[in-house]
This record gives sequence, structure tokens and C-alpha cells, in this order.
Amino acid sequence: MEYARPLPAYLVSRFQGWRATTYQENRAWYRRLAEKGQHPRAMVISCCDSRVHVTSIFGADEGEFFIHRNVANLVPPYNPDGEYHGTSAAVEYAVTSLGVAHIVVLGHSSCGGVKGCDDMCSGHAPQLLEKSSFVGRWMDILRPGFQRVAHLPDGERIPALERQAVLVSLENLMTFPFVAKAVKEDMLTLHGLWNNTGEGLLEQYDAQRGFIAV
Amino acid sequence: MEYARPLPAYLVSRFQGWRATTYQENRAWYRRLAEKGQHPRAMVISCCDSRVHVTSIFGADEGEFFIHRNVANLVPPYNPDGEYHGTSAAVEYAVTSLGVAHIVVLGHSSCGGVKGCDDMCSGHAPQLLEKSSFVGRWMDILRPGFQRVAHLPDGERIPALERQAVLVSLENLMTFPFVAKAVKEDMLTLHGLWNNTGEGLLEQYDAQRGFIAV
Amino acid sequence: MEYARPLPAYLVSRFQGWRATTYQENRAWYRRLAEKGQHPRAMVISCCDSRVHVTSIFGADEGEFFIHRNVANLVPPYNPDGEYHGTSAAVEYAVTSLGVAHIVVLGHSSCGGVKGCDDMCSGHAPQLLEKSSFVGRWMDILRPGFQRVAHLPDGERIPALERQAVLVSLENLMTFPFVAKAVKEDMLTLHGLWNNTGEGLLEQYDAQRGFIAV
Amino acid sequence: MEYARPLPAYLVSRFQGWRATTYQENRAWYRRLAEKGQHPRAMVISCCDSRVHVTSIFGADEGEFFIHRNVANLVPPYNPDGEYHGTSAAVEYAVTSLGVAHIVVLGHSSCGGVKGCDDMCSGHAPQLLEKSSFVGRWMDILRPGFQRVAHLPDGERIPALERQAVLVSLENLMTFPFVAKAVKEDMLTLHGLWNNTGEGLLEQYDAQRGFIAV
Repeated sequence: MEYARPLPAYLVSRFQGWRATTYQENRAWYRRLAEKGQHPRAMVISCCDSRVHVTSIFGADEGEFFIHRNVANLVPPYNPDGEYHGTSAAVEYAVTSLGVAHIVVLGHSSCGGVKGCDDMCSGHAPQLLEKSSFVGRWMDILRPGFQRVAHLPDGERIPALERQAVLVSLENLMTFPFVAKAVKEDMLTLHGLWNNTGEGLLEQYDAQRGFIAV
Repeated sequence: MEYARPLPAYLVSRFQGWRATTYQENRAWYRRLAEKGQHPRAMVISCCDSRVHVTSIFGADEGEFFIHRNVANLVPPYNPDGEYHGTSAAVEYAVTSLGVAHIVVLGHSSCGGVKGCDDMCSGHAPQLLEKSSFVGRWMDILRPGFQRVAHLPDGERIPALERQAVLVSLENLMTFPFVAKAVKEDMLTLHGLWNNTGEGLLEQYDAQRGFIAV
Repeated sequence: MEYARPLPAYLVSRFQGWRATTYQENRAWYRRLAEKGQHPRAMVISCCDSRVHVTSIFGADEGEFFIHRNVANLVPPYNPDGEYHGTSAAVEYAVTSLGVAHIVVLGHSSCGGVKGCDDMCSGHAPQLLEKSSFVGRWMDILRPGFQRVAHLPDGERIPALERQAVLVSLENLMTFPFVAKAVKEDMLTLHGLWNNTGEGLLEQYDAQRGFIAV
Repeated sequence: MEYARPLPAYLVSRFQGWRATTYQENRAWYRRLAEKGQHPRAMVISCCDSRVHVTSIFGADEGEFFIHRNVANLVPPYNPDGEYHGTSAAVEYAVTSLGVAHIVVLGHSSCGGVKGCDDMCSGHAPQLLEKSSFVGRWMDILRPGFQRVAHLPDGERIPALERQAVLVSLENLMTFPFVAKAVKEDMLTLHGLWNNTGEGLLEQYDAQRGFIAV
């Protein structure tokens, strides 16, 4: 496996700096987490985008959130067909093994995956329609959301579609029997958020009023 | 969608505190990231586990890493069958759209997913063998790794399997044509890491020497 | 004193966030409290348990309650022997210096201290009988309460003992001359509460009817 | 026990409001904490003073901190004499049963207990010298701290003594064998803080530099 390469030196330096400072100062907590296991209160489903770190905006420490990150913070519908489903596995582990109390779906502005979905559904990105496009097929999950906002003019459609990515994920979460059961039994609550990363704003979804500023 | 609930008040408070301090102080950078887009230098594939935050150990800022997190930091083999593949979509986006220079696979100690794989392959978790088990099916990706460490005694097998989760993912990454091409053209390097979260140690995979301390 | 360590960074961030928002918005009140002193209307005696925050359930602001928290919300009997008595000092300060109008004893479900007392008195925790066990000796205060519920079957005894922890404390409060005097003069009232933290229920003690839902 | 009185109506109203809102919205988390138990990361030892709520300044949720509050946030020296020691019992439970990773001693400005200690030690409060004074006897714990600041002029002595209340408590914590052992084994860290409640400032104790602003 000769293609595996040494870690860039600046990352080695940063790690060693972290170890000499943050780790040393919080060693007791890291060790306790290692010995007694994690008990995160919430699962967060967020985008891979480098501009969205949920640990920053919520001042979270190690141990607090179980975080799944994928392109466009999407959850596919329940489909136990025996194939690989990374997102479904993460949701299953969080709900049935860890027993988290909340699942937070965190969308964001300027999402490249959502933009790709809009291009694809608007006919501007034929390459994303190909069977071999993983991004295209992944963004198919958001097609029901696109249908709901397709009538909007150009400047409004993409921000609306970013919020649809949150709503479609919440809807799909409820198709998982173990999620629906935990929600019904009041052992789990679902939350939809959308973060404008440039302006530092956060909106939450409210069933009556739609997305409103936090 | 009456099941969507308000964000817990303590998270609202924390967000507002973050906005009044960290955001205000770094506003220029957040806005620039929003306007000019993200240019992350690396993709990190890490576990959902609440004890492993790559942004902490590498002192990373917003904009630096494109982060995919799934159960046990696994990458499945290349399989363009037209179905949903969240991990493959994330890798494709990072390599072909963002052009990251590195992909870092970060494994860790006490991984619940790896433990489940060991239980399943050792015959101690029949429920994980069921077709409907998303975690079980997802951990099937690691079966080739289990074969290589199955002969080890109990105390050694799981830590070895955690490192196999990194190696299997690196091997699978190379089955993606666009990854292999970028590696061959020296536009992309792959890196395997394993983090002992309790002891604050980091090991990197070296083709000659195996996993060695950073 | 080299063992004193820096505050974990996430708590520093959270404090700075609080200072920039909640503090700034309420600065006049915090400053006035600092200059004119506190005038809390009630003393609350509650457990150290992380699940019971009286400030949450009663929507309390800074300045409203003088709060003593110890294991199992216990008050020992009056015993002016010249030794350290932290709980008695807190009660004395609240009643004679601050002149609070109410003392509220707040018990709760799943109390670890009460469970320890039950184990100890039932002969299942010999280590708690040792002279050197601070928890064991502290829970001795509750022994009179255990005598009253010892006949109950397993599932009922511990919840009953949690309520006894409230009643024993109320009884012991009345052994303090300055408490009895203030109660007699109608300058102070005593209140017994029991909180089921999981179900969000509150019961209050009524001399005629026992513990009844609020 | 006819002296037990109904809860004031305004507190009943507030509780019912809390139950209809905060509890309903966070019910999953409260239930999970009830079923799976608490796993607080830190113990906080703070004053009963109504102006100091650690949950506010650190944006803490239920489940995060195990909180002991007594007059002047004092910890007495280790003394396993078989008598009641509420503070020692709380420390023992936090360290040996819950395995907290941090103990934070939080002092504050305008502390009535510290003021009483200064008056007593300066000869201005003979009533606090009486054997029957619980506050006086409790504040005896702080006498070693008073010796260190006794030479300071009037305006400086009390703020210095408030910080001594933190240091004496840290010193006394280390006299508990189970605390010293956990600290030595890097399973527990101790932290000293002083909060100026009127100005919203926080200082932390540093072994080299003394109390410095956070």
C-alpha cells in the first residue's frame, strides 16, 4: 500500500501542540470518556462543507454530539435492502444503541450539493444525470424537495432548496420505524436548522411558521 | 410536520453567545468564505463518535477540512450502480469538484461500529446478521479486514480491527477511478491515522512499518 | 499548587458568549444586585444531582433563590457542638441574616444518595457502614425515614424513602430554634416538594393528604 | 407536621408554565437522563448566593454539572470522624461514584460568608465566635486563608479573602485520599475560579500567575 503517505508536517506539529496543551489540560475528561463510554445527548446530521462546524456554533465539547456529516445533510428514505447505507447505519446506531434524545438536521447556505441538485433538476448539469455520478444519485434524495420549489425564480429557488434538504431529511427520518417509535414514545425529538454561514445566522423550522430566526 | 420541535433553550443561548463573540471577531473570514467559496486543503473521513473531533486535534478553522463522518470511518468499494452512496458522493465531490490535496482516514479507539463488526463476525451478535440491520450491513465493508485479524487473541483483535478499518478504507478509495488517477498524477495523497482518544495518541500508517506513533 | 489547571477551552468560550449576550443585556440588574446586595425571597435546599436545577423548573433569575445543594437534600438535626456544619450554616445565614420568607426542600426521583441509604439500611452495602464513608455517615441522617418505610416492598420503598428525605429535613429544620421561632411568628414558611425529573412532575407535601401533585 | 405549607401560587404557575413548554420540548432528554442515569463531566462547588448560577454563565443543560452549593464555596479538610460532613459526602460521591473529570471551585464577589469571616477574624463580630454560631464555625475553615491576607488594607483584604476561599478549598480537596489519587492518576483536574458578579468577569487561578482574567 505504497500510496499511503506520511502526514503533512504542519498537521503533525498541530497535533503535537494540541497534545501538549488541550489534551494535557483535559486529559481526565478524555480518559473518562474512553473508560466509561460516550453518552451524547444529540445526533447532528450536517454537511461535509468545511464552513459548517456544529461544535463551534454550539460551544460543544468532546462527548456531547454524535455527528454524521454527508453531502447536503441528507437522510435517504428507509430501505432495508441489505445494501450499504452509511447514513441509515449512523441513524440506527444513534437511536437504538446510544439512545440520543435529539436528532438535529443542520442545513446551510451556499451548499454545493444543493446547487448541484438544482442544476441537475433544471437541466443544466447533464453529467449529474449519469448512472455513474455518485453526487447526482445522492442528490436524487432531494428531488421531492425540488418539486416543491421548482416554480420559484432563480434567486429564491436555491435558498429554498437548502431548507428543503432539511425538511426532506426530517420526513425521511420518520420513515425509519425505530425513529418513528422513539418520537411517538417521547424519547426522541427532531429539529431542523438552517445556518447562514456568512452572516452567522441560524433559523429553526417551526411546523406553523416555517423557518424562523433563532 | 408537527414532529419538528424547537431547539433546546441552552443551545439557543450558546449559539447567541457564539454569534456575539467568535462570529463577530471572525466575521470577515466567514463572509469571505461565503462569497468566494470554500477551498479546503484536505478531506477527512472520520467516525461519528462524539469523542473524535478532527477540528480539535488539528486546530482546524472553518474552511480548512471537508469532513465526512460515518460509522467507523469506512469507505465502501467503488460501485456505480445508480443507488444512493453517501460516502462515495462525498469522496467524488471532494476530489472532482473541490480538488482536495489529501484524503485523511481517521480511525479511533473504542469504536462502537468496529466492536459490532467483531461481535458479528465472531458469531456473538446474530441480530447484526439480519438483512434489516443497517449497522450490520454497513460493517460488512470491514469483513475483509476481519479476515486478516481473526486469528488474534481477544485483547488484541479489536485494536487491530480498528486499524484495519483505516486500511480497508484506503484500499477501497483506490478502487475509485478518479481517486486512483489523482493519486497517480501526484495531485492527491492518501493518509491513514488511528487516534487513541483516551491517551491522546495518534498513529499514522506507513507502508513499510505499519502504524507508528506521530 | 501546581495541581490547579486552566479551565477547559469550551467553558471559556461559553463564558465569553454569555458575557457578550446575557450579561450585557442584564447588566443593570447584575450591577444593582452587586451594589445593593441580594434579597432572595426563598432558600431552596436541593440535591447536587445534575438533573435537578430549581432555577429551570421555577424560571428563576439571579437574585431570587438562596440555594444550598447537598447529597439527597438533607438537613441534619440541630447540633451546636462547635464543629463544621455546612448545611446548618446555610440555614442559619438564610434565616437570620437574609430573612428569607420560605425554605423549600426539593427532593427528586432516582436519587443516588437515597438509593445508597436504602442499600445500606437493607444490608446490601457494607462499605457504606464504615466510619470513613462520608456518604454513609451523611445518609445516617435519613435512618429515621428508613424506619418508617422499611416494611414496603422493593419497588415502592425507594420512592417512599425519597419523600422521607424531604420530611426528615423538614422535621430537622424545626429543631433549629431560629427556624421554629420564625415559623411561629409567621415570618417563615416551610415547603416540601418531590420532583419526578423524567416525567416533569412535581408533588408537594400537605399535612393532611401527604404528597400530592402540584 | 402542620407547619408544612402549600407552595406559593406564583411558583405553582411558573412550574406549570415550565412543564407546558421547556419540559414538553425537552421531554426526550429528561426521560433519557432518568432512565440511563446522569453522567456529569464536572462537579462544581459554588456558593449558595442567589447571584451566582453556574448553569447561566456556562450555558449548562440538565445533566452536565453535579453542583454542591454551600456558604462561601468551602471544602473542609479531610476528617473521617464518623460525623455528618455534607460537603465531604458530595465530593466523595462525585469522585468515587460518578467519576467526574473536573472539580471546579467557583468563588465570587460580595460574598456574605467571606465578609463574616473577615469581621470575625478582625474582631468585629464577637457573636460569630460563639460555639453556637454555625456560620462562624463554618467560616473557621477559611482562617488559614485569612492569615495570608490579614496584612492587607481594608479595601483589598476582602476581595483577596474571597480568592483565598477558593484556594483553601483546593488545598483541602487534595487532603482527601481519593481526590489526590484521582489527580495523580490524571483522572481528575481541579480548577479555581472567581466571578465578579456585578461586572460579569471571571478569573481563573494559575499556579504561576495567580488569579488571571479568563
